[in-house]
Amino acid sequence: MNLVPLPRIMLEPLVRAALVEDLGRAGDITTDAIVPADLQANLVLAARQPGVVAGLDLAVLAFGLIDPAIVIAISKPDGSRVAPGDVIATLSGPARGLLTGERVALNFLSHLSGIATATAGIVDAVAGHKARIVCTRKTTPGLRALEKYAVRCGGGSNHRFGLDDAVLIKDNHIAIAGGVRPAIERARANVGHLVKIEVEVDTLAQLDEVLALGVDAVLLDNMAPGTLTQAVQMVGGRAIIEASGRVNPTTAPAIAASGVDLISVGWLTHSAPILDIGLDTAA
Amino acid sequence: MNLVPLPRIMLEPLVRAALVEDLGRAGDITTDAIVPADLQANLVLAARQPGVVAGLDLAVLAFGLIDPAIVIAISKPDGSRVAPGDVIATLSGPARGLLTGERVALNFLSHLSGIATATAGIVDAVAGHKARIVCTRKTTPGLRALEKYAVRCGGGSNHRFGLDDAVLIKDNHIAIAGGVRPAIERARANVGHLVKIEVEVDTLAQLDEVLALGVDAVLLDNMAPGTLTQAVQMVGGRAIIEASGRVNPTTAPAIAASGVDLISVGWLTHSAPILDIGLDTAA
Amino acid sequence: MNLVPLPRIMLEPLVRAALVEDLGRAGDITTDAIVPADLQANLVLAARQPGVVAGLDLAVLAFGLIDPAIVIAISKPDGSRVAPGDVIATLSGPARGLLTGERVALNFLSHLSGIATATAGIVDAVAGHKARIVCTRKTTPGLRALEKYAVRCGGGSNHRFGLDDAVLIKDNHIAIAGGVRPAIERARANVGHLVKIEVEVDTLAQLDEVLALGVDAVLLDNMAPGTLTQAVQMVGGRAIIEASGRVNPTTAPAIAASGVDLISVGWLTHSAPILDIGLDTAA
Amino acid sequence: MNLVPLPRIMLEPLVRAALVEDLGRAGDITTDAIVPADLQANLVLAARQPGVVAGLDLAVLAFGLIDPAIVIAISKPDGSRVAPGDVIATLSGPARGLLTGERVALNFLSHLSGIATATAGIVDAVAGHKARIVCTRKTTPGLRALEKYAVRCGGGSNHRFGLDDAVLIKDNHIAIAGGVRPAIERARANVGHLVKIEVEVDTLAQLDEVLALGVDAVLLDNMAPGTLTQAVQMVGGRAIIEASGRVNPTTAPAIAASGVDLISVGWLTHSAPILDIGLDTAA
Amino acid sequence: MNLVPLPRIMLEPLVRAALVEDLGRAGDITTDAIVPADLQANLVLAARQPGVVAGLDLAVLAFGLIDPAIVIAISKPDGSRVAPGDVIATLSGPARGLLTGERVALNFLSHLSGIATATAGIVDAVAGHKARIVCTRKTTPGLRALEKYAVRCGGGSNHRFGLDDAVLIKDNHIAIAGGVRPAIERARANVGHLVKIEVEVDTLAQLDEVLALGVDAVLLDNMAPGTLTQAVQMVGGRAIIEASGRVNPTTAPAIAASGVDLISVGWLTHSAPILDIGLDTAA
Amino acid sequence: MNLVPLPRIMLEPLVRAALVEDLGRAGDITTDAIVPADLQANLVLAARQPGVVAGLDLAVLAFGLIDPAIVIAISKPDGSRVAPGDVIATLSGPARGLLTGERVALNFLSHLSGIATATAGIVDAVAGHKARIVCTRKTTPGLRALEKYAVRCGGGSNHRFGLDDAVLIKDNHIAIAGGVRPAIERARANVGHLVKIEVEVDTLAQLDEVLALGVDAVLLDNMAPGTLTQAVQMVGGRAIIEASGRVNPTTAPAIAASGVDLISVGWLTHSAPILDIGLDTAA
Repeated sequence: MNLVPLPRIMLEPLVRAALVEDLGRAGDITTDAIVPADLQANLVLAARQPGVVAGLDLAVLAFGLIDPAIVIAISKPDGSRVAPGDVIATLSGPARGLLTGERVALNFLSHLSGIATATAGIVDAVAGHKARIVCTRKTTPGLRALEKYAVRCGGGSNHRFGLDDAVLIKDNHIAIAGGVRPAIERARANVGHLVKIEVEVDTLAQLDEVLALGVDAVLLDNMAPGTLTQAVQMVGGRAIIEASGRVNPTTAPAIAASGVDLISVGWLTHSAPILDIGLDTAA
Repeated sequence: MNLVPLPRIMLEPLVRAALVEDLGRAGDITTDAIVPADLQANLVLAARQPGVVAGLDLAVLAFGLIDPAIVIAISKPDGSRVAPGDVIATLSGPARGLLTGERVALNFLSHLSGIATATAGIVDAVAGHKARIVCTRKTTPGLRALEKYAVRCGGGSNHRFGLDDAVLIKDNHIAIAGGVRPAIERARANVGHLVKIEVEVDTLAQLDEVLALGVDAVLLDNMAPGTLTQAVQMVGGRAIIEASGRVNPTTAPAIAASGVDLISVGWLTHSAPILDIGLDTAA
Repeated sequence: MNLVPLPRIMLEPLVRAALVEDLGRAGDITTDAIVPADLQANLVLAARQPGVVAGLDLAVLAFGLIDPAIVIAISKPDGSRVAPGDVIATLSGPARGLLTGERVALNFLSHLSGIATATAGIVDAVAGHKARIVCTRKTTPGLRALEKYAVRCGGGSNHRFGLDDAVLIKDNHIAIAGGVRPAIERARANVGHLVKIEVEVDTLAQLDEVLALGVDAVLLDNMAPGTLTQAVQMVGGRAIIEASGRVNPTTAPAIAASGVDLISVGWLTHSAPILDIGLDTAA
Repeated sequence: MNLVPLPRIMLEPLVRAALVEDLGRAGDITTDAIVPADLQANLVLAARQPGVVAGLDLAVLAFGLIDPAIVIAISKPDGSRVAPGDVIATLSGPARGLLTGERVALNFLSHLSGIATATAGIVDAVAGHKARIVCTRKTTPGLRALEKYAVRCGGGSNHRFGLDDAVLIKDNHIAIAGGVRPAIERARANVGHLVKIEVEVDTLAQLDEVLALGVDAVLLDNMAPGTLTQAVQMVGGRAIIEASGRVNPTTAPAIAASGVDLISVGWLTHSAPILDIGLDTAA
Repeated sequence: MNLVPLPRIMLEPLVRAALVEDLGRAGDITTDAIVPADLQANLVLAARQPGVVAGLDLAVLAFGLIDPAIVIAISKPDGSRVAPGDVIATLSGPARGLLTGERVALNFLSHLSGIATATAGIVDAVAGHKARIVCTRKTTPGLRALEKYAVRCGGGSNHRFGLDDAVLIKDNHIAIAGGVRPAIERARANVGHLVKIEVEVDTLAQLDEVLALGVDAVLLDNMAPGTLTQAVQMVGGRAIIEASGRVNPTTAPAIAASGVDLISVGWLTHSAPILDIGLDTAA
Repeated sequence: MNLVPLPRIMLEPLVRAALVEDLGRAGDITTDAIVPADLQANLVLAARQPGVVAGLDLAVLAFGLIDPAIVIAISKPDGSRVAPGDVIATLSGPARGLLTGERVALNFLSHLSGIATATAGIVDAVAGHKARIVCTRKTTPGLRALEKYAVRCGGGSNHRFGLDDAVLIKDNHIAIAGGVRPAIERARANVGHLVKIEVEVDTLAQLDEVLALGVDAVLLDNMAPGTLTQAVQMVGGRAIIEASGRVNPTTAPAIAASGVDLISVGWLTHSAPILDIGLDTAA
């Protein structure tokens, strides 16, 4: 899979907001008081845990918006696996700017690398199976595009980006519509020709009903691996199959072994811990 | 401690941005296709895990900005402890708006409640000691004010809100200044009279040097509980003492028992998992 | 097809920007000088041409943001067909606000109603055929969501909303990839499971090649109706078929008669003239 | 007339918004999947219809904000007449950026060139007469400054830019004031010394009344050419004379021949079709 | 002269920005800690100096955006003369909101009332003469519309609102153009029919030259009253006459006595001290 | 004291807003009409009064955002004392950009230099005493960070930047709390460890009570110099002492002589007149 950087115009407003949030109304009063304006420094961004890097463009922007004189050389680009101690990038330039930009740069980088690392953990666990790992819309408000990108850095794929780019018919929609059939028919009648329709099903009986109606994808929520295997056989290639519910590196292999196409994991974007990355003095 | 809501003008831009992020350019195409415009619904926000609630104002805003006809009654306000199944709030109004606003409301509420819950876990662990639990600047970009508020909901306190509201002299500042003394002197000479100065110290020898110079607070990073106890005695009330490093509910009691004033915990805001909260049909 | 209003939070920033653009730095100096503050007026929005209404929510917002005391009753909601003289809405309230908000309200309403009217013209022309009329990404910068909504008001459907919600492989992509096969394979390998893939084809030979590879939709650009008929037979239900190129009310019936699923029309959103709507004194 | 470019700070926010609107949350997924990162391309912006160019700065910004490595050489600057096939600009740089920025660049350029072309059509029609062609406030919301600039590119002039930069007393103002005299007197008493006053008149009797009161300009709405000629004689240089109503290249010469100073044309900015411009492979 | 309030949509973004600027990331920590949530208070905005009120809408918005439960009754609306001790408005509602909003409300109100008061001082000084007092573009960045409005509250009029709404040819333009004639001719050829042209002249000889060319207004900079009187005679009603330079309540009467139409005063908007207004406990 | 420039990301939005405010919808119509596009000019920013410079970065940004070809060389950086005629900076580049950017650049520069100059006047008056001159939150809405920076340029220090970075307990807080003790206790219980607490006291009796409770600072409002001297003795180093009320260059020495640590002056930021700076032709 291609890993293509997000355009700078999508990143810049977020980095500017984060910097202003940290600088407040008076800027970095500690650094401004203590560090001479002309002092240069050489630093490295180094991993302190094993993981996968994501978000370097944001870190580069954070430093560059504070001081364009800061030069950054990346040795482990987004998507790279790193071991503790690995140098991700080297930075040189005015010491003030490096210290002032540090926290915002690390907040982006460690958060997104945490998501990439969590993703890679599940991706690794299902290696050898065809299942792709996908994220959900359970993202941090305001950072969805970044977090979805971080999932891609970790080897995962993306589910819907919003309420508007695909139909996902859930339990409550079916209940309101008075059944699967009217729900699907209403959806088909109302959306564009490039919009796919996925339906959440909880039982094999429901699955049977949905398949008869023809949909692009089915979401099998919280089914045991054995049931998933049955479901895969029932589907027989007529729809993309997504499994979800209680996915972690331990449970994922059995889910993947059922033959499903996708395994969706909400916690990648809502609960993954950061990847610990530090800004250290260059050796 | 008073728990005072953040003013709506601080919350509203964040909620608007999150809604627009989810609605994209076409809105909730699933709900719009399937759910009749005049259908009313009654739902509840219910806890699925034990924890502490934070962020209800954001959830209320999310629903209200989608449809002002949605009425919300809160039974477990921010700061409340909840058990699985507890109803946090009941919602009634147009079904479309409830379904469209659901994800954004839950993304805010579960993220912030996750932080409050993590905070409460450490706060509970040090109960009986005087130590306050505080967060750091390791926050999600753009959400700092919210996350600091969530820490308060969990019974914690707040450290600096940004680079501008207090001086925190760290290792690199001391190294650049050529010692603790010049670093502190430069800081004192350059900041306002309402700005406190805290200095990070790694050894008891450093602590001794810093105390002699007079500062408002010292940050003891990664010291063992025994060393912390010695440090507390050395300080003898001359400065506020903050301990940090490898804090979790298991290690916290021993750290607190040393008599430090504050224990700072970065992962509350950068790595706490969400609190699982669902939007369910009212019983 | 359901016609669901766009959420107010998607409209409000655009209306605010348009009002500020018109008010400038001094407001409506003519009205402020001449019209007494307490004068009330009753006006109507009336059609001066036959057409289809779209954009009333924007007009309502424009008046309401200027003066919340203005009351508006809609008699011809979005999607309604109107004849010259038909009253679309009646307005009553402070005369100053009505005069000050008039131009911005009409600029939105007449522009979007123009698009709806143009769409309805083509939709009517293909009545009796299965072909849906769809718009393109050739929209006025900043107004895409509104213009796509206006197309829906006119009975049309929407194509992609942006570069991110579906794959559309065009000539230049195929040329760069070195053929249809590598282009489609790269796309499949890189996009999410809810993203459809459409390929532009210029000849029946190309169509044959694309169908063998399996795609969701094909775009037949500038083919004569006879060729389109052949193409529909070749496809045989294996893909959605979109036709484009030189579509107008005269040419559309023949194109539709070929049996294509969709006819896309760029000029609906880039060149449709306004629908003439006036703000008149109530009878 | 000087044709001076609008300052970049007026254009940049509009281009950024348009790009973000098109990129959505995932960017150009087709191009990112198919086009190699290091592929370079040479393209041309070429006219497919005869017309007048307007908006190149916006196109240049669109490409430059996507990828600053894109180099653009303009051969037909804003205001140039072009024939079908004429190369307006040549572009070279990374193929990805060129394809990703294409639609937004063309949407601005073809929309504004359409306005310039429509303007030039009327300007040409009145050549030899003194009448200047002017636009109105019937502009696309948010794009007024651009569209007024496009009118200048087409050889036209600009009327008011907003409600605040000149007084235009219309029928309803006169009715509310209780006559032309009180309307004009109130306007004069309330506006600054650099604000001109124009009054709309529907009959020669009204014109007589207005002239007696002394105003800067009169707007003669929907008068036949013969009546306009009479009006011009009545005015005798005492006010600028603007004619409006049903102006097109066929009717314009007779209107201009009446000797009016200005002919205002609403449809230049609200209903002009685009000028068809394509992004083609360089020969 | 009518004193018409500026539309709320022009004021609200400025008030929101000012509140966020004052609230920072943690809000009013003093009030939140000390004042009970349910405490109500009754306060008054009272003048502590004689002056003219301007900016009450901004104060009302500041309190209302902090807490919509605050009720405000205005007794001295914008434009009123007040004496020390005069109650301008009474406020009642939650004490927290009143204390939190106080500073922002007062910062707007006292700044704008200061401008209104300064304006009234000059307006009073020239009473009995026809000269109107006007302000300039020397305004506080971002607040021009407000400050121009405050001048109107003080009985003054407004000069240009920006670079775009009138032509003002100054010394440097004349020097660059190579004389008054080419400067005026170029201006006339390039601007719309509703744009007035004013020319700065430094000597009576220049005035003569300018008058011969015909302009809307002349700006006589730094001329002595005697020279101004001569200039007024020379002009003989052929242009509006503006005088500027070293205007204060002492010098203004002699300048006005010369018969000029306008006296422009930069310091009204760039150097007027605030009007001291306090928020006091209601008697 | 270090004088560290504010980061560009804090300045740029303010300068962009100010330029757009001045350019309006049509730009600098005078300059565009008269000045040739290729004309170059050499100008100087020169002081016309004695004072202290502040705000050059904003002036540089204003010109640079209008035309990046403008080159500026600063000879009197922020914080410099200047005499009438002193050249502050030389500018060269396209004449159009220089004339168009002039007013915005000067509006920032003269406003902030006025504050710096006023500050320096009081700072000079208390030379030889230890008292620092500090500003308040009585700032122009939206410009607080800039105005606080200007105070630093003038040799002053900064008080609170907002409601959130320190506790300042005033009369009304004490009255509401029911006394000094509960007010201070509530504050202490609710704020972070890096937040200082200052209490306003009006009498020596109150001072005694406050000192017994232990606070970081006391604000002595409107006390006579003799009383201040007594207060300083009472405090005996137990708190920082701030004096306020009726401070000007004449009264300041006596206040400073009392031995207080700080003298706060509201009018520095709300009522200081501009420093007259002009943009002149280079000699």
